[in-house]
Parts: sequence; structure tokens; C-alpha cells
Amino acid sequence: MINMPLEDRTALQDLMIAYCYAVDRLEHVDELLALFTEDAVLDFSAIGLPLMNGHGEMRKFYESVFKDMTHHAHYITNFRPIRYDGNSGAMTAYVIGIGHSKDGNEVTVNVQYTFEAIRTAAGWKCQRYSMFSMLPLPGSLAEIHGER
Amino acid sequence: MINMPLEDRTALQDLMIAYCYAVDRLEHVDELLALFTEDAVLDFSAIGLPLMNGHGEMRKFYESVFKDMTHHAHYITNFRPIRYDGNSGAMTAYVIGIGHSKDGNEVTVNVQYTFEAIRTAAGWKCQRYSMFSMLPLPGSLAEIHGER
Amino acid sequence: MINMPLEDRTALQDLMIAYCYAVDRLEHVDELLALFTEDAVLDFSAIGLPLMNGHGEMRKFYESVFKDMTHHAHYITNFRPIRYDGNSGAMTAYVIGIGHSKDGNEVTVNVQYTFEAIRTAAGWKCQRYSMFSMLPLPGSLAEIHGER
Repeated sequence: MINMPLEDRTALQDLMIAYCYAVDRLEHVDELLALFTEDAVLDFSAIGLPLMNGHGEMRKFYESVFKDMTHHAHYITNFRPIRYDGNSGAMTAYVIGIGHSKDGNEVTVNVQYTFEAIRTAAGWKCQRYSMFSMLPLPGSLAEIHGER
Repeated sequence: MINMPLEDRTALQDLMIAYCYAVDRLEHVDELLALFTEDAVLDFSAIGLPLMNGHGEMRKFYESVFKDMTHHAHYITNFRPIRYDGNSGAMTAYVIGIGHSKDGNEVTVNVQYTFEAIRTAAGWKCQRYSMFSMLPLPGSLAEIHGER
Repeated sequence: MINMPLEDRTALQDLMIAYCYAVDRLEHVDELLALFTEDAVLDFSAIGLPLMNGHGEMRKFYESVFKDMTHHAHYITNFRPIRYDGNSGAMTAYVIGIGHSKDGNEVTVNVQYTFEAIRTAAGWKCQRYSMFSMLPLPGSLAEIHGER
């Protein structure tokens, strides 16, 4: 078990939770981007979605997602520190992600997130966010997000 | 991000979790009421259920729910402090609420709770509890709880 | 509410979360057993599964489960300390457990775990782990795990 001070554990959990709230609000991409460093990498390739480099590519992806979806709910549990050196650290968590799209489709994913984060003057920010699926991926995931 | 000391965060999380255990036991309304101030307001109007004022109205509602349901399971995640001033504070969380009724109906709701709480001599208590649905409400919610 | 220091609460939560990660990896029984004392009792009888005494019986059970399942995802929430005396303590939690078996069956259980743990030189370890179902058990649970 990684030894991470409670304050930093809480900060990393808050960061991952804040991401869920931001992605579920489906409105303010800036609020979501503020959780990530400018050069953050988002690697969703393990579930057939894009690998993104930096705020520019992230903005394009999330603007498109927010436009297409009517509802999102991302339940995050099973927080687990996996790396810590004082000014950087990583945490994994389990997520049940539910989405409804404007064209009437629905998707539920059962995934594991990894957030690799660094301490900045403005608090902890995510530098690399990746995920993989814990269960076989539903076909509706590609239908909804496949073309991004 | 709201700055709430870890002890009070934990206390507010415990309060919300205690509510879930109490509502899932389907037995002791007093145990549930003890988590709320005498004059607490429960506003479920955003999901088509009652707005209640004080222990008296709450007792009537929960006695009726406990009589009608055979099983409850309320999973609570995504805790997030949204207000804090030392002696009062508020926290939101996501809930997957599953219910089975005596007449054989089933309902799952995907909701967000807000607990507005105050510090009392007997610990933190909820003064106002409201919720909204993160996904379209299932029809069975009105069938099961509609007449209260 | 039980008064358990934050450090020990975190340790017990970490133990229960570590169990979920270990049971979901479906690979390393030793990693899973290391979370339990040598003489730990696992009582799954309330959901129609075995009562096990000690690492030997646990190893047999989990080796068989890991061989039969292709996917596992155990979401753990609603942590609640229920006993604490400094060197031993107990915590409950809610779990949504999802499993897919090699023969194409699927099961979701909605259960409550209790971990009774003691402080050892190697950290907190579970001495007794029991569970019960919060909802009627699905038929596929006995189909998948019934013969162990």
C-alpha cells in the first residue's frame, strides 16, 4: 500500500470527483479543463476512444460530447493511491459511467480510471488520465462516441 | 473547491451514509429522524415526491415508505463539500437508489443529494435535504411513491 | 456513531478496497490472502456460498472462482465503522458485485460486507469477512458459484 498523506489523498480524490461532476454537467468545458495541466494527456484508447494531447484536443472532444449527450452520471468508487513522491502522485478508481445521447441511445461503462497528477501553485492537477474497461464494452459505446 | 476540515468532511459524509443505512433498514423511523434537526426540510419535489417540513411530516412519509417496500439499497458516492463556515456546511453526493415494493414493482433512481447541515451539541444534523435526478426518471418511481 | 481515528478508518477502507481490486484481478490468490489473517473466517453462507476457515480453504475457493470467471467488478461504497478498540475494529460497506463467467453467464449482487480486522505488525488484516444480500439474490449466483 502506497503511503500518501491524508491531505493529498483527499486532494486527488477531490480532483477525480470534480472531473465526474464536470463531465456530468455537460456544460462548461473550461471548468473541466481547469482540472488538467495545459499539456495533459488523456488516453482512452483502451476503450476505443481517442488519445488526446493538451487542452486544445481535449476541448474539441468534450465540446463534441457535451453537444451530443442529454444526460451523464459517473459514479466513482474504490479510490486507491498507486504512486506518491510528495509533488506528484497517482490514484486509480472504479467508475460506473452512464450516458444518454440526443439520438436516444444509452450506454453504461464499467471502467477503471487512473489519474496521474502533480502539485501546482493552483492545487493538484491531472497530467495523464487513462482508463480501461473492467467488463466487455457495450456496443453502444462505439455507436455514441465512435466517430470522435 | 471548498475548504472543509477533514473531521467535518468525515462527519458530513457519515451523516449522509447513516441516512442510507437508515432508509435501507426499512424499520426504525426514529433512527432516521435523529439525523435531521426537528425543523428539517426535505425537498423531493424535483423528482415528483413531497416537500416535507419537520419530523412530523417526515415520519408520516417514511412510515408509509417502510410499510410498502420490501428492499432498499442506496449506494452513495462522489462526496463533494459545497459550503462551509465552521458551524454549518453543505455536501452533495451521487446516489444509486434501488427499491423493491411489496406489490412486486422495482425502481432504480440515479440522483444527486444535497445535505445542508449544522453542528449541534449532538453532532452534525441535516437541516435541509434535497435531490434531483441525473437521468430521466423511471415510470415506476411514480407508481411506487406517487401517492404519498 | 463509532469513534475511529481517521488513520485507522482509512486503513480499514483501504483493506476492503484492496480486497475488491484483488478479487477483480482474477489472478493472484496470494495477493488476496495477504489481506486476511492466516486463520480468517469467510462466511458467505447468508448468500448460499461457503463458510471458509483459514487460508487453505480460502485458496481453494478463490482459485476455483478465478478459473471460472472472465470478468469481475466490485464497486464498494457506504463505509461505516461499527466497532473499534484501538487494536481491532469492524467496518461495513455496500458492494455492487458484477461477474461474468467463462460459460457466458452473468451475475450482479447487491450486498453488504462486514470486515472485522485486527492491527498486526504488517498492518490491518481481516479476521472475519461476512456478507448478506440487500436485494433478492439473482438465480445466476447459484448457477455460477453454487457448486463450490
